[in-house]
Amino acid sequence: MNPAQALEILKRGTTEILSEKELVQKLEKAAKEKRPLRVKMGFDPTAPDLHLGHTVGLRKLRDFQELGHEILFLIGDFTGRIGDPSGKNKTRPPLSSEEVASNAETYKAQVFKILDPKKTKVVFNSEWCQKLLASDLITLASQMNVARMLERDDFKKRYTSNQSIAIHEFLYPLIQGYDSVALKADIEIGGQDQRFNLLVGRDLQYGAKQEPQVLILLPLIEGTDGVEKMSKSLGNSIGINDAPKDMFGKIMSIPDALMKKYYEHLTRISSNEIEILLKGHPRDAKLKLAATIVDEFHGAGAGEKETQSFINQFSKQEAPEDMPELKWAEIPKDIPLYKYLAADCGLFSAGEGKRLVTSGAIKVNGEKIDLEFSTSKLKPKDVLKVGKLKYFKIV
Amino acid sequence: MNPAQALEILKRGTTEILSEKELVQKLEKAAKEKRPLRVKMGFDPTAPDLHLGHTVGLRKLRDFQELGHEILFLIGDFTGRIGDPSGKNKTRPPLSSEEVASNAETYKAQVFKILDPKKTKVVFNSEWCQKLLASDLITLASQMNVARMLERDDFKKRYTSNQSIAIHEFLYPLIQGYDSVALKADIEIGGQDQRFNLLVGRDLQYGAKQEPQVLILLPLIEGTDGVEKMSKSLGNSIGINDAPKDMFGKIMSIPDALMKKYYEHLTRISSNEIEILLKGHPRDAKLKLAATIVDEFHGAGAGEKETQSFINQFSKQEAPEDMPELKWAEIPKDIPLYKYLAADCGLFSAGEGKRLVTSGAIKVNGEKIDLEFSTSKLKPKDVLKVGKLKYFKIV
Repeated sequence: MNPAQALEILKRGTTEILSEKELVQKLEKAAKEKRPLRVKMGFDPTAPDLHLGHTVGLRKLRDFQELGHEILFLIGDFTGRIGDPSGKNKTRPPLSSEEVASNAETYKAQVFKILDPKKTKVVFNSEWCQKLLASDLITLASQMNVARMLERDDFKKRYTSNQSIAIHEFLYPLIQGYDSVALKADIEIGGQDQRFNLLVGRDLQYGAKQEPQVLILLPLIEGTDGVEKMSKSLGNSIGINDAPKDMFGKIMSIPDALMKKYYEHLTRISSNEIEILLKGHPRDAKLKLAATIVDEFHGAGAGEKETQSFINQFSKQEAPEDMPELKWAEIPKDIPLYKYLAADCGLFSAGEGKRLVTSGAIKVNGEKIDLEFSTSKLKPKDVLKVGKLKYFKIV
Repeated sequence: MNPAQALEILKRGTTEILSEKELVQKLEKAAKEKRPLRVKMGFDPTAPDLHLGHTVGLRKLRDFQELGHEILFLIGDFTGRIGDPSGKNKTRPPLSSEEVASNAETYKAQVFKILDPKKTKVVFNSEWCQKLLASDLITLASQMNVARMLERDDFKKRYTSNQSIAIHEFLYPLIQGYDSVALKADIEIGGQDQRFNLLVGRDLQYGAKQEPQVLILLPLIEGTDGVEKMSKSLGNSIGINDAPKDMFGKIMSIPDALMKKYYEHLTRISSNEIEILLKGHPRDAKLKLAATIVDEFHGAGAGEKETQSFINQFSKQEAPEDMPELKWAEIPKDIPLYKYLAADCGLFSAGEGKRLVTSGAIKVNGEKIDLEFSTSKLKPKDVLKVGKLKYFKIV
């Protein structure tokens, strides 16, 4: 694959590439030198419960892997081990090395659902940061200025609204940037909210006379409510480890308007196909989306199973409360269902019944039946649907 | 000496004590426990050329020494060894350990003119700061916030006028404060411009569960121009190592209005005596000031010698350009000068001449003469002064 084709794949879903020109140069150079690019992405050591929001970046990493590049999956345990040194935030106690190791295992179990373990290097920044001296940190700090730090959105807001910013918070972006120096990263991938921090990496690499990393920024996707950024604490997240049924159900619950974004960032279905799907019935598009994602995390076929199950449940839920009832004990066994409905119930003629069955307008528990479907298969609590509006319940 | 008396001595010349109450408590505790207080003062490792401005603090340290306390003369070599890590300030290259050691010797040679070497511990902050890890510095940094740092006068000015402040500049006050923790300082002495930094020391000691140090702040004294703070680079400084004549002359050149401040901070002449001196003739007060200070740095008697020399020179300079001339060759030898002036020159009667000599109103080259002063002592270029206004020049 030539660099231009690679670029096309890598650009998908990005909000910004800084810069595209440098990315092309790096791709060309890597191809020429027959060496993989070093692609860094940082992860918080305290939150190993991944959700689909995290997979936006992971999928971009996989794109790089599939193009032959090396992934540096960075666990930022150095600052995690410090915790909140001001002691004000009781919810951030320092992590022990055992906790870090255990969280890392949890991470791996999740990310290797998307990434290829053979092409992924899991690294911990404590490895180089723990040895870092105060004098080294002072030298790093000299390369960044206060005014620029205060331009970072969250700092600016807090500073102008007189909320306290502890000075060590200015040091964390430097540590994160120094990771890029230590790793000699060619590329760093991050959410668009990480733009500032990733730029610090570029600056520090420049100061260390390295070729600055290219930033690839990705959007933050909204959770199931379609409003807030996906986040476990907001209760709008879809977990990587969610059971197939939960995952499917949560995806089916997103607003229609969010489907395009989910398709683009959470699947690798082609843009053309996405366009076609979105032109069809929204429910069908959403079922396909949910099935595709469930397949990804729970194996091929899991999506189809959940689709059927969802349709059944959905159909049942669709049925009204006060359906006419058919007594099971009184239904003759072992005749085609459509004949029973025609002859015994007088709903339609046998010919019309045949047509309805073959056009899929007769369903049992949401599932279409065929002409052979026998009354013996029915059981109490089943729901029959005829056409768009008629429901019957077996009692 | 009881704590109240000690306090009286220690308060002299201070602009602020934070707090006086805590100082009294520390003095009382030290007396009770029969242990000296640990009194810290920090010095820049790059500027070992001390001037009288520096001695304001050194004298305060000596006051503590004379009360039996221990002086921690801190040379801040840790940051000096880093230099200007941003590399922007070419005038601040990192100091080598040889340079630090050599500067320290230069310091000692100067400060021990004021301090007692036996009660002075010279310490270098590289000793504890060089081992400090980045993680330790992060923890220190968490105890201070950005808004407060930006309240520091120089930072505030630079921030509001869009001048760059590098982030490591925020770390230096923390390092300085940490020195107080490492030294377990009871007291820190500094110029009033150091107030902010010294307060950081209090905060960090508090964070380290130590009893916070008391701050003793001293004024910055103006240089010989009477306007700018004394500073070698401004050319208005009086060096500790200046030759007696230079030192004396520079002190004589200060504006009269500055005498009170110099007396208060650069001598230990009592307040009562200072008041009396300042009520007398300004020139006499200034001569006494200069002599006292020269004595201090060049040994007892040096001041008196420079006083006489200055008077001589001053008197010659005072004489007008167009004095009447007396031809040396025509002056009769070996008779009392006053008789010659009375009889040969007809300036006054012999009786009046006697009275003028004994009242000191007849001077040769600015020095009073006695009745025996012979014409044989005169030589060409001498200046005679009679009364307040009459001058004669020997040619």
